[in-house]
Amino acid sequence: MLSEPTNALAWISLGAGVISLVVAFLFLGSVLKEDMGTPRMKELSNAIFEGAMAFLNRQYKTLAPIVIIIFIVLFFVPAELFTHGDPEAAAQVTGLSGRLALPVSFLVGAVASAFAGYAGMVSTTKANARTTNAARTGIRKALSISFRAGAVMGLSVAGLGLAGVSALFLIFKIPAIINSFAFGASAVALFARIGGGIYTKAADVGADLVGKVEAGIPEDDPRNPAVIADNVGDNVGDTAGMGADLFESYAATAIAAMVIGGSVLKPAGMAMEGVLFPLMIGAVGIIASIIATSFVRMPSEESNPQAALNMGLWGTNIITAVAGFFVAKAMFGDVAVGIFIGIVAGLLTNVAIGYITELYTSYHKRPAQEIAEASATGPATNIIKGLAVGLKSTVYPVLVIVIAIWASFFFAESAGDANGIAGLGIYGIAMAAMGMLSTAGMVVAIDSFGPVADNAGGIAEMAELGPEVRKNTDKLDAVGNTTAAVAKGFAIGSAALTALALFTAYAQSANLVETGIDILNPIVIIGLFIGATVPFLVASFAMEAVGKAAFEMIAEVRRQFKEIPGLMEGTGKPDYARCVDISTRAAIKQMVAPGMVAIGTPVVVGFLLGPLALGAVLAGGTAAGVLMALFMANAGGAWDNAKKYIETGKLGGKGSENHKAAVVGDTVGDPFKDTAGPAMNPLIKVMGTISLILAPVISKYSIFGKMFE
Amino acid sequence: MLSEPTNALAWISLGAGVISLVVAFLFLGSVLKEDMGTPRMKELSNAIFEGAMAFLNRQYKTLAPIVIIIFIVLFFVPAELFTHGDPEAAAQVTGLSGRLALPVSFLVGAVASAFAGYAGMVSTTKANARTTNAARTGIRKALSISFRAGAVMGLSVAGLGLAGVSALFLIFKIPAIINSFAFGASAVALFARIGGGIYTKAADVGADLVGKVEAGIPEDDPRNPAVIADNVGDNVGDTAGMGADLFESYAATAIAAMVIGGSVLKPAGMAMEGVLFPLMIGAVGIIASIIATSFVRMPSEESNPQAALNMGLWGTNIITAVAGFFVAKAMFGDVAVGIFIGIVAGLLTNVAIGYITELYTSYHKRPAQEIAEASATGPATNIIKGLAVGLKSTVYPVLVIVIAIWASFFFAESAGDANGIAGLGIYGIAMAAMGMLSTAGMVVAIDSFGPVADNAGGIAEMAELGPEVRKNTDKLDAVGNTTAAVAKGFAIGSAALTALALFTAYAQSANLVETGIDILNPIVIIGLFIGATVPFLVASFAMEAVGKAAFEMIAEVRRQFKEIPGLMEGTGKPDYARCVDISTRAAIKQMVAPGMVAIGTPVVVGFLLGPLALGAVLAGGTAAGVLMALFMANAGGAWDNAKKYIETGKLGGKGSENHKAAVVGDTVGDPFKDTAGPAMNPLIKVMGTISLILAPVISKYSIFGKMFE
Repeated sequence: MLSEPTNALAWISLGAGVISLVVAFLFLGSVLKEDMGTPRMKELSNAIFEGAMAFLNRQYKTLAPIVIIIFIVLFFVPAELFTHGDPEAAAQVTGLSGRLALPVSFLVGAVASAFAGYAGMVSTTKANARTTNAARTGIRKALSISFRAGAVMGLSVAGLGLAGVSALFLIFKIPAIINSFAFGASAVALFARIGGGIYTKAADVGADLVGKVEAGIPEDDPRNPAVIADNVGDNVGDTAGMGADLFESYAATAIAAMVIGGSVLKPAGMAMEGVLFPLMIGAVGIIASIIATSFVRMPSEESNPQAALNMGLWGTNIITAVAGFFVAKAMFGDVAVGIFIGIVAGLLTNVAIGYITELYTSYHKRPAQEIAEASATGPATNIIKGLAVGLKSTVYPVLVIVIAIWASFFFAESAGDANGIAGLGIYGIAMAAMGMLSTAGMVVAIDSFGPVADNAGGIAEMAELGPEVRKNTDKLDAVGNTTAAVAKGFAIGSAALTALALFTAYAQSANLVETGIDILNPIVIIGLFIGATVPFLVASFAMEAVGKAAFEMIAEVRRQFKEIPGLMEGTGKPDYARCVDISTRAAIKQMVAPGMVAIGTPVVVGFLLGPLALGAVLAGGTAAGVLMALFMANAGGAWDNAKKYIETGKLGGKGSENHKAAVVGDTVGDPFKDTAGPAMNPLIKVMGTISLILAPVISKYSIFGKMFE
Repeated sequence: MLSEPTNALAWISLGAGVISLVVAFLFLGSVLKEDMGTPRMKELSNAIFEGAMAFLNRQYKTLAPIVIIIFIVLFFVPAELFTHGDPEAAAQVTGLSGRLALPVSFLVGAVASAFAGYAGMVSTTKANARTTNAARTGIRKALSISFRAGAVMGLSVAGLGLAGVSALFLIFKIPAIINSFAFGASAVALFARIGGGIYTKAADVGADLVGKVEAGIPEDDPRNPAVIADNVGDNVGDTAGMGADLFESYAATAIAAMVIGGSVLKPAGMAMEGVLFPLMIGAVGIIASIIATSFVRMPSEESNPQAALNMGLWGTNIITAVAGFFVAKAMFGDVAVGIFIGIVAGLLTNVAIGYITELYTSYHKRPAQEIAEASATGPATNIIKGLAVGLKSTVYPVLVIVIAIWASFFFAESAGDANGIAGLGIYGIAMAAMGMLSTAGMVVAIDSFGPVADNAGGIAEMAELGPEVRKNTDKLDAVGNTTAAVAKGFAIGSAALTALALFTAYAQSANLVETGIDILNPIVIIGLFIGATVPFLVASFAMEAVGKAAFEMIAEVRRQFKEIPGLMEGTGKPDYARCVDISTRAAIKQMVAPGMVAIGTPVVVGFLLGPLALGAVLAGGTAAGVLMALFMANAGGAWDNAKKYIETGKLGGKGSENHKAAVVGDTVGDPFKDTAGPAMNPLIKVMGTISLILAPVISKYSIFGKMFE
């Protein structure tokens, strides 16, 4: 155990974060050294790169005023509010440096998130043609390039997260204050997820419905005017959106765990250990991820690329668990095992949810096959069945999450009780979240690999490289679909645990621990209802946005097919830029309303109905948000794979009536799984980070809050 | 105020319930006196009647063993558990009469629910051809017959509910014990709603997809083999299902309000007033409903039938409010106004939710029209838009419900505080629920009128009576669709308030009021998550059941079209009975699993995780259940009307590509709005009534419950 408060450990975690960024930079360099192939491939890759950059630029430009406004507001929030009457802490945040703590942390969080987005996007969009080119000679090197490109994103996300939290902690010392770093990350993640989700699906739905269904041309056919927008969308949604999402989870969880650890372990004289341990687990996870990237390699051309990625994932998990045990032991002595079990619970939750996601969405399993079979009676029965599968798929993940909560709480609480530390259980839950997220570097790497492989296939098709190249990229793409499902489960599970950690930290910060948040109090029931409604409303906005944007896209693609002479014959050139522009404009415009609902609800409820109601909003929002996220992600995945199942030649194969029905289901599933579903994660987290910022303020000022106390 | 405990008031409410039943009987007689028309009409009506009876018989036969098992289990639960250490009360339930209190109340509840189902079903299925016959000469008399038929159901439901509660209270004296009457009603309602919902939609989807879409014959065409099953389904779902649902709400709310009133008002010496007031409001509402049935008349053939029904509804609301005020004043003196505001809040909630439902589902309004417009790009965009509308439609009803909770709590609590009565607020909330449900007689009447009008149109079509008759029945049917939407909103809103009243009564019974149910306790979070998942699972079962049953039905209808010679030409006769049988078998078989989930969850959670977790399950289940109910009901209604909007000739009209896309949306919406959505109401209530029964037991015995206290 640490004999006295020490910052040395925070310097270590800062170092680990920086190492991660250096490795990411080296990976990026090694990717860029590869050859891009033919001029046509370069041209296509550049079009995708430029489309992606154009979107990111416009997105961040739109966010800038919001970030600046919040920055200014935070400047006027006195940082002393977050020191809970601790005079020593309060002394550290007086004067200008105190004034700057909140806004600067916020700004760093927002900028770091944007930076991670750019880094990942550059890397994946620069790697696509290079992967295609490597696939011309074999799959081994193609996997290596695409995985390294993904690892740039993964290591940037984890590295920026850990380095950011560590550095701000070294500067401002008080975890509750640097929580505004997480808030900055949240704000960007929310819009990145929603905007990216709208972009990708507007393009995808437009490209599919007109190109594949009406014109009867294959996926990624260069004649399809929406094909570049579609390929940009893969990056914008899966890479930038997912990266921002997990960056947020990472930052919010680390800080919430630090806040909880500092307060729970204070009476035992281990406040500093409690605060620093989450950073240490972060450092362990990052080093484990870096080491495990070297496990991701195919021994021969015939090996299974999935096995290579699994090696990376399992390697990270095992190294983190083993090293985490010794770190816990060194820092906590007798209570170490109780806390360590929480970390293991977090790691296992990840594995279990990934497996369950696979079960409900893979076309090797019954649920997706049953959806395919239901297509025999048309699109309506396909959709009814898909909705049923999605609804049912929520049960096991929720059971996994509640068992993780139970186990991490119970063992930490018991260890605490045996050693005279009261209330250690909630630290156990927070460390389950942190354990899960410590592997984010690897999870994001194998997730971001997906869009690269997907794009590589698209470029192979558009550059007409022949079927053997496409076969190699298709193999990688299929693996990418599985890893995407795993990452989606990871994102939801970690968001759930992060939201719970934020909820607990909020309750501490709002002084609600002693009084409790009693559901028998009508204001709490009211808060629960309001909180549970928010995910429905945000999902509605997201669905509607895709509907509208896709409508425009469909009209544009139809117009081009009609008005551009020789387009179908391949003699006329489609206007790709116009489609890219439609997706971009729609995404930017439509991301604002749902984002405002997510940010506005805690503010309005907090100031109007008070801290109890706001606590209930978080609980209700988290429960409903997690369920809706699972429902929509899994229904969408299952529809997608039901269609793919038919495309393997089953039940009539491509072009049959069954297939047409399955395409309708897949199209409905697109905004479900890639827009509305993923929006739930940042939604529940952003509500938590804002509430944590608001807590000290609203516990003093609220209009009707006192009435129900 | 009552000077001493008196049973006189319970005799009055018993009398009001009996009067209601007598009036229902007289209405039934007056309907049966009417002429049924041509032999063909009689034949069709009889086929529907027999199909409906066959279903009810099989349903109740299937439920009988479940009811008997629960009866036996309850026989061994000592009634003393429900007397909360009150020696006087305990003395009343010793010996055999004590042993019988729970099981007998349960059995009476189950049998009364079944009886109401039969009464309503006989009346509506006997009235359909009579309404058609009246429509041959005009609409005025047709409305009168179909409304009287509906009123038989409405007055039976309210009358049996009020008479049953009153009589059992006079016999067993202790509200917490006769709660098993509500449990009996719940158990039947759950299966009736789910079974009825599966029946009606299997038939409807089958009839529509093959008949209308594939064979291109109109709705209710006698050549369609599923047409009789479809018409039976209208009664089974809308009349029997809705009736059982509201009977349950009525019984559960009345008893929960009595339990809460008895406990909250006991310290003020007004326990008996608190117990009896809900019965008095029930009596007021029933008498108001009976009086207002006389307002439902069309002055001339040209009047608006909707206006006639509105007169009935508004009349009931206003009479109940005015009379309720004087009853409250007489019983509670100074605190009367505070409690009375709760009743008004309940009545207004009904009006507001009805209006909002109309806003999101009527084809005169934008949401349904936008869905119709989204059909231009095919079924996928139609469905995406419909899902978005359904998700968004949850927001205002939830706001209405939380405002009703807030207002009814606040004013009652303040009135209590001013008069030294602590905790009167929750009685205010319970009385909001009771106020809303006191008008159930009229609401069920105008709801059950719908299927009669619908069937009457079907018979006109099948008996080939010509367009002028169909025009009259269509007018009534359109009104029926509106009243159905109003009733659906009523059912959801009242289920929400009923569930909250049950939740509060549960907390009292499980001795959780002092400790509270603190969401910061991990076991409560776990309970919230589990509770919120149950509606998703039950909805999944319901959707899947319809999918499966519709699949069989479609295959059968296709087979008949193919194998029966001359069927399309009208020379061959379809085998109606086979289709009726498929729906019946499917409904009976598939209602069991979701029912068991609903009943099993509270039992398992209660005994495993204890009373705190179970309380959280109720809260989480109620919030998620209400949201899912609103989402599914409104999405389904909006899809239905989007299709109808196109059928009025807009956007290409019937037979256009737009129409085909809209039919797919309507078909997806069918199990949403008529199976899975309505199943949410009994689900959240049955979880509450079981928990209330379990409360005293699990607060003593639970495996892990103590761990988290």
